[in-house]
Amino acid sequence: MKTPTAAVLVVGNEVLSAKVRDENGPYAAQALRNHGVQLMALLTLPDRLDMIVEAVARERRRVDWLFTSGGVGPTHDDVTLLAIAQALGRSLARHPALVENVRRWYSRQGTEPPEAALRMADVPEGTRLVGDALHPVMVVENVVMLPGPPQFFRAQFDAFAAVLEAPPFRLACAYLAIGEPRFAPALDRVSLEHPDVDIGSYPRFDEADHRVKVTFEAKDAERVEAALHAFLAALPEGAVVRCEGP
Amino acid sequence: MKTPTAAVLVVGNEVLSAKVRDENGPYAAQALRNHGVQLMALLTLPDRLDMIVEAVARERRRVDWLFTSGGVGPTHDDVTLLAIAQALGRSLARHPALVENVRRWYSRQGTEPPEAALRMADVPEGTRLVGDALHPVMVVENVVMLPGPPQFFRAQFDAFAAVLEAPPFRLACAYLAIGEPRFAPALDRVSLEHPDVDIGSYPRFDEADHRVKVTFEAKDAERVEAALHAFLAALPEGAVVRCEGP
Repeated sequence: MKTPTAAVLVVGNEVLSAKVRDENGPYAAQALRNHGVQLMALLTLPDRLDMIVEAVARERRRVDWLFTSGGVGPTHDDVTLLAIAQALGRSLARHPALVENVRRWYSRQGTEPPEAALRMADVPEGTRLVGDALHPVMVVENVVMLPGPPQFFRAQFDAFAAVLEAPPFRLACAYLAIGEPRFAPALDRVSLEHPDVDIGSYPRFDEADHRVKVTFEAKDAERVEAALHAFLAALPEGAVVRCEGP
Repeated sequence: MKTPTAAVLVVGNEVLSAKVRDENGPYAAQALRNHGVQLMALLTLPDRLDMIVEAVARERRRVDWLFTSGGVGPTHDDVTLLAIAQALGRSLARHPALVENVRRWYSRQGTEPPEAALRMADVPEGTRLVGDALHPVMVVENVVMLPGPPQFFRAQFDAFAAVLEAPPFRLACAYLAIGEPRFAPALDRVSLEHPDVDIGSYPRFDEADHRVKVTFEAKDAERVEAALHAFLAALPEGAVVRCEGP
């Protein structure tokens, strides 16, 4: 099974201007990992139609799923749905089931929805609604349109994530007492010989018990093991503090 | 004075695979804001040459400064400097002052640097070194190449930030007791009439004393004030919980 891939686009002036710290990107990164999905890009862009159109058109072509966060409300700075429609060459259309949800919400308060509230039901033509009918996830082609407030983002992300299930990633780590330059040529070789294993090298510069953590990751535990052992065999005496996994 | 703009590109499989949470992007967002610089994009991409080349070529054209984080070490997954060189149509060249720094570091331990350590001095041709000679910031054209470990990222970012000084942003906030649909048409109008003021609307769905925070931001406090007052004048009685700024 090919590893499914995803990208996340956070639409948010408030993150770029440091008014709030993004919670949705890190949540999605962890959740996608847990579901065996490879996150290929995490982008935060301003509420600008032109930039979002361009990013959606570009990113959705190189992944299986593009998730967007934010910009789905009724005010002038909510341009995500229009941008996605334009990126897909679709128009916006008022979705009857979403209109129904807006009306139901207002009728509980004994009022009719104002036009601005109904505009929240204007979504890219062909949008399908997934999951709970009262809080559906909006999906068009391979773009999943999620709300920005973290509690709603998480709830809808989790509701959608069931369709993403894939075999888990397998990870092994080697913690080393030597610096990167001393093992870089060996790791280069192991990396070339195991192109199906993602290998990362992370130095630290604090008082930890190791100087570098080297990670080996793939869906196949045997390949992870093979890369780890090839690397360990190439290290000088005393280089390894400890190993973990896969 | 035109507001300077920036983008930040974090190169890091470890962030995308949720092994660590990115600290450098949020730090840069806050620091750029404090320096009066507008952050236009915050991107996290994997250690993949093709994706970094494309992103650098694209992003650096639309901002004054592109900052990169990570991928500047000596191992196979450190591809940022090569990617930047390719994006700028330059070759990598060994920088004499950087070689000198590597040699000095090793000589303090009584050894010669291995070839892998010297490769850290291979930077895009024309790279200039800014700030402290022992820990210089590497800059080529409008691309500032920063290391990934947060303590080094912050130190080098701060060392470079002095050149970025621009007038501060001025912010006013209105905290409202009514929901977005009730004021969206008024805010639309104010936004159209004050195109030089960035206006954001942020609903909350918890037990706070307000339902929506509306922000007005620009470099000119008088324009912020004008937009805020135009908006307040259009609100129904009792809608405003409180205001702040500019």
